[in-house]
Amino acid sequence: MNHNYIKPNPWSIIEEGFDAERVKSSESLMSLGNGAMGQRANFEETYTGKTFQGSYVAGVYYPDKTRVGWWKNGYPEYFAKVLNAPNWIGINVNINGEALDLAKCNKVEHFRRELNMKEGWLSRSFTATLQNFVEIKVEVKRFLSLEMDELGAIEYKITPINNAAQIDFMPYLDNGITNEDTNWDDKFWDVLSVDHEGEQAFITSRTMKTHFYVCTAMQTQVSMNGSKIASEKTVNATNDKIEFTYKNEVSKGDSITMTKFGGYTVDRNHDKNDLVSVAKNTLQKACDLGFEALLQQQKQAWAKIWDMSDISIEGDVAAQQGIRFNIFHLNQTYSGKDARLNIGPKGFTGEKYGGSTYWDTEAYCIPFYMATKDHEVARNLLTYRYNHLEKAIENAEKLGFSNGAALYPMVTMNGEESHNEWEITFEEIHRNGAIAFAIFNYFRYTGDFSYIPEKGLEVLIAIARFWQQRATCSSQKNQYMILGVTGPNEYENNVNNNFYTNYIAKWCINYTLEMITKVKEGFSEDFARIKGKTKITDNELDLWKKVADDMYFPFSEAHNIYLQQDGFLDKELITVADLPKSQRPINQKWSWDRILRSPYIKQADTLQGFYFFEDHFSTEELERHFDFYEPFTVHESSLSPCVHSIQAAKLNRMEQAYEFYLRTSRLDLDDYNKEVEEGLHITSMAGTWMSVVEGFGGMRVKNDVLSFEPKIPKGWDSYAFKINFRNQILKIDVAQNGTSFKLEGDSDLTIMVNGKLVEISPNELVTV
Amino acid sequence: MNHNYIKPNPWSIIEEGFDAERVKSSESLMSLGNGAMGQRANFEETYTGKTFQGSYVAGVYYPDKTRVGWWKNGYPEYFAKVLNAPNWIGINVNINGEALDLAKCNKVEHFRRELNMKEGWLSRSFTATLQNFVEIKVEVKRFLSLEMDELGAIEYKITPINNAAQIDFMPYLDNGITNEDTNWDDKFWDVLSVDHEGEQAFITSRTMKTHFYVCTAMQTQVSMNGSKIASEKTVNATNDKIEFTYKNEVSKGDSITMTKFGGYTVDRNHDKNDLVSVAKNTLQKACDLGFEALLQQQKQAWAKIWDMSDISIEGDVAAQQGIRFNIFHLNQTYSGKDARLNIGPKGFTGEKYGGSTYWDTEAYCIPFYMATKDHEVARNLLTYRYNHLEKAIENAEKLGFSNGAALYPMVTMNGEESHNEWEITFEEIHRNGAIAFAIFNYFRYTGDFSYIPEKGLEVLIAIARFWQQRATCSSQKNQYMILGVTGPNEYENNVNNNFYTNYIAKWCINYTLEMITKVKEGFSEDFARIKGKTKITDNELDLWKKVADDMYFPFSEAHNIYLQQDGFLDKELITVADLPKSQRPINQKWSWDRILRSPYIKQADTLQGFYFFEDHFSTEELERHFDFYEPFTVHESSLSPCVHSIQAAKLNRMEQAYEFYLRTSRLDLDDYNKEVEEGLHITSMAGTWMSVVEGFGGMRVKNDVLSFEPKIPKGWDSYAFKINFRNQILKIDVAQNGTSFKLEGDSDLTIMVNGKLVEISPNELVTV
Repeated sequence: MNHNYIKPNPWSIIEEGFDAERVKSSESLMSLGNGAMGQRANFEETYTGKTFQGSYVAGVYYPDKTRVGWWKNGYPEYFAKVLNAPNWIGINVNINGEALDLAKCNKVEHFRRELNMKEGWLSRSFTATLQNFVEIKVEVKRFLSLEMDELGAIEYKITPINNAAQIDFMPYLDNGITNEDTNWDDKFWDVLSVDHEGEQAFITSRTMKTHFYVCTAMQTQVSMNGSKIASEKTVNATNDKIEFTYKNEVSKGDSITMTKFGGYTVDRNHDKNDLVSVAKNTLQKACDLGFEALLQQQKQAWAKIWDMSDISIEGDVAAQQGIRFNIFHLNQTYSGKDARLNIGPKGFTGEKYGGSTYWDTEAYCIPFYMATKDHEVARNLLTYRYNHLEKAIENAEKLGFSNGAALYPMVTMNGEESHNEWEITFEEIHRNGAIAFAIFNYFRYTGDFSYIPEKGLEVLIAIARFWQQRATCSSQKNQYMILGVTGPNEYENNVNNNFYTNYIAKWCINYTLEMITKVKEGFSEDFARIKGKTKITDNELDLWKKVADDMYFPFSEAHNIYLQQDGFLDKELITVADLPKSQRPINQKWSWDRILRSPYIKQADTLQGFYFFEDHFSTEELERHFDFYEPFTVHESSLSPCVHSIQAAKLNRMEQAYEFYLRTSRLDLDDYNKEVEEGLHITSMAGTWMSVVEGFGGMRVKNDVLSFEPKIPKGWDSYAFKINFRNQILKIDVAQNGTSFKLEGDSDLTIMVNGKLVEISPNELVTV
Repeated sequence: MNHNYIKPNPWSIIEEGFDAERVKSSESLMSLGNGAMGQRANFEETYTGKTFQGSYVAGVYYPDKTRVGWWKNGYPEYFAKVLNAPNWIGINVNINGEALDLAKCNKVEHFRRELNMKEGWLSRSFTATLQNFVEIKVEVKRFLSLEMDELGAIEYKITPINNAAQIDFMPYLDNGITNEDTNWDDKFWDVLSVDHEGEQAFITSRTMKTHFYVCTAMQTQVSMNGSKIASEKTVNATNDKIEFTYKNEVSKGDSITMTKFGGYTVDRNHDKNDLVSVAKNTLQKACDLGFEALLQQQKQAWAKIWDMSDISIEGDVAAQQGIRFNIFHLNQTYSGKDARLNIGPKGFTGEKYGGSTYWDTEAYCIPFYMATKDHEVARNLLTYRYNHLEKAIENAEKLGFSNGAALYPMVTMNGEESHNEWEITFEEIHRNGAIAFAIFNYFRYTGDFSYIPEKGLEVLIAIARFWQQRATCSSQKNQYMILGVTGPNEYENNVNNNFYTNYIAKWCINYTLEMITKVKEGFSEDFARIKGKTKITDNELDLWKKVADDMYFPFSEAHNIYLQQDGFLDKELITVADLPKSQRPINQKWSWDRILRSPYIKQADTLQGFYFFEDHFSTEELERHFDFYEPFTVHESSLSPCVHSIQAAKLNRMEQAYEFYLRTSRLDLDDYNKEVEEGLHITSMAGTWMSVVEGFGGMRVKNDVLSFEPKIPKGWDSYAFKINFRNQILKIDVAQNGTSFKLEGDSDLTIMVNGKLVEISPNELVTV
């Protein structure tokens, strides 16, 4: 662990004391987002210390020209990446002519920040003595509105302590921003206009190449001791920045406050010619309501979210804080309202991984959104891939596939592949499987079959086609093999017969065949449309079936386990426990070839297959595989501990399960991987949720029956969560002395608890 | 084949007719070099058409900052690359004020270029009608002197045909040059001074970072109808260029000639403060001798080279031209005088592959230089690696090896790795084997054991240590394996147990153990020094022996062959013959993953092992392996056909051997790979030589006996070559009716011909 400066608190992330070395970490941890926009916890005023400035608008990206050492056929020309958006939060402050800058003050005391997750706001307060010896108290609060998702609000209050002072607020909009993570130091934005009217200002700009239009806007207001005052301002506009200056004499002990509303309007939601007028209206509406009323709305909106998605834990504040931190950021990142958006691995907290969509969404995020939101949200995530089907087919064509076979991109913004490392881009093809699995999982959990005839089956067919074409027949074994792949464990490249990949490929084909039959039988109109569009024939389906039936799986008779890939047992099988600590993390200590020839597993791979297809294996089989693979797993991916936590819980190894749980839930808070400065691991946060609900809670759905096998880690008094199962809300409360269930709904629900059927009526409290 | 515009001619490369589309190809084909400097066949005068300007100074390189998409631990920060050197050949020409530019003339006729390989010069002649309707005849000849290797000479003659004309010659030196192939568009040169004195000019400059000092110099002279004239000049100097202007009125039918001497002096050979004075003296000496006398020297120098290294072929002019083209360029690239230099894959003909040293030198080039030069030349090539031993040990340390294990770089200029593709940089480790093999090969061929105790054994020990540490023990097979490698066939990456790699690793260890014993027994003083330095112990040697003894080799009982690597037979084994032509070359048509999972072989891999260690296998074994692997080989590396040609000849498949011979010998002349514009494949040219001498001639050395099994391709009347075997020169003349041998030496030599011992006395002609 890198640091543990965050105070334990069930509902807040609190930092006390100013430490310049922590600024970038806190900027990540305390990021705000509302699904439509995001903002790292950068200071409003000038800060000349180390900082990573980040403002993001959902869905606004730029195709950065690919940079590689050695070009390979099939690489994309561009890498779509999230863009640093114009800064709307900036408020420069001058105190008697000296810029307030925490990096340059004589003294900073009582520094405290709180990210209040319950209510969805960030506050900061401190007293500072400037170089000119003026002492001031500063109190700042800001939030990004959930209700009005084009809006953020800031209240910035200053009280001179030791003397009267001239306090100048210089709120601004700045489009002169760059990305930290760019390949060619390109400029990404064209500014089209810089305007102001009254206390409002607007910068309209357009991203280069992608031509997204964005209006960045602000409206400002000055108050003295809580009452609005008319403060004269001067305006300073350049070709990419506009700044208002309000100068005020403030007596010792009086408080002056700058209230700033700001945000973005984008042409994804409005006609590009209306962006300024929409922003104008939004700002005026916010101003009319006022900061406090908006904050009340914010609290209510978050209360509603928490009511459904909270997991409460009694008796372990670190665990409690961890899970809420995860749930909070997931909700900040993706609201599910817009099928054009998705969940980037770093959400709105950093630029790395291009802010794009990975298989993380299907493999880790969908269960969380499915259980804690209206099912439309998960459906939107599926639809996102349906809308990209054509591009996935084009992508496969570039790699030599035909006849409508689809390979979904490893990384994408708009459906086009934007990754460029052959061993991943071309070979980490298991991603196709997770996309099919999510369709199955959605139907299994929600019971909503309609998605499959409407959209899902077309995706499944294209994926099944890919697997059939990608498998090759080994004449010496007379079985189908998938050669040259990278599995979920990216510490193996270009291996043959990765168990997980082969297994999910076979499953995809069989599931698609099954769904074809179901749609054919029950949805003849849809079937006719799909058959016309995809031109599937019985001959083709026979071919698929042959591949699925004769799929090869590497297996060790000696260990009675499936092998992660061909040749795994030829490695030097030294467990992680016998690896000196000085050698870890191996991705920082070892050269790539050494990692590759080692047995070390970056993230669950064979065990990921056992997670997805738990039903297909006995508990004894799971245990054997867990016992074999876990000792070689270094968990150097954020997506690894959650799966192991769930399986450890399933195997009744609660101490181990709890250890993995802490590792996943406090990964960023405790900065296990020493990289939190770059942003948070958003997608793995959904895995944290799974490790409580599916791990400790043992929640599963099988044959339309919801089941639980609740367990509780040592030291916890109880934990509780709610889920939306088939539009019925069930509250589960697991305590040392039993588990209680309460149903919010209008009809009875039969669930299975520890293997026994339990009938629950609405509002009845059933304890088992 | 892309084009075949080069006229068949036994001694010259002749192009007739001007075609702007061929300019870049001809610039490569007709490159000049003298071991110390090189020059693409760029025009002296302005040319605004497509051209690739290239002037090179041996050993002057620049560490270009590495560019990768995804950084891996262990990658080098820099990629050393050959630099485009200042231009010394430039002579701009104005005719009545209009610049002569073949891309802009009204008419270009009788265009003819000849690279005369016998005498080592390049000529160009044409008549041109300018836009101002002046018609001129131009005749240019140039060469890079072998005798004075800091000097080149140009004679540029113009005759106005239809009218008198004012003809201005503007010879210049230009340091304002860039590389075509740079990662960051950096500037590479700092110009320190631009001077002139009389008819001489000098630019002194220094490469950035590496700080090589180079003086680029010229001296000019004007003649009319063959007699020197005093022509007034003006001088125009900028901060990186200097140009003289000579204006002359020339009557119709008179000829005016600019003679320009120029070249480079470098601080590798002189004190950096003396570069200008050395250049001055060289130029003055050249001027005093005159162009014609220097040209006579050049012819004599080449005659001497050809006397030893020529291969003459009667009855097949294409084959004859091909082999001489190869031998000519090899001699232009590397003279063997300087152990600090080596042979870049493109020599002085282009920038690609960084002009650096690859394993090509040891695997392909050494036999040629060993047989056609003084043995000191091959010894210098070995010493080059000895001098880099310390850096090879550092390189291995970066990858986790210890105790003096060495991994020689994949690509280097100064001993440091400068490649950055993990599957090659870290995994194409077989290169270490070729470096050890070259030490063995040198001793086998020259009989000079002294290199081994003096230098070679230290290299061998460091390489053996690498192999022992790199091999890992498979507990399930209880044998040593080498996991995660790329063999010579780069169309497989990160495979396990590449036969070639495992075999050469085992051989390296055994050979090193053998040499340790020999040195210990015969060279006790050297042994004491080496033991002190390397600290080898009996325990360590036992460890090596265990690895060598228990090395695993993938073998197929069904096919009775060694497998290229684990799992090779699981591929879909469709032969190249069954691959549609439209799919080739696969490296241009297929994505990388498709290439990797295919069975196609880029260059001899298992067969490369059979080539090096032919003695270890029976002819039947060779035949089985050849029959198995050849049908999957696409020969998309220039280094592939030569090995297959030698083996086809050994197997008495003369048609196939001849086909491969043409492919290797005319690879660039006929532009098989459609890339000759970028430069020539210099290192594979040595393979061409091998395919005649070792392939058709069947030359081998075994147990100190030189042997031949001469064969002759259909259609050839005869072929002849000379070799230096243990400082005796033997001429071999293979004709349809028998092979004759003639010895230039002072003692008898016993050779073996077709399995029978033959005694040859000096100057006796023995026909078998």
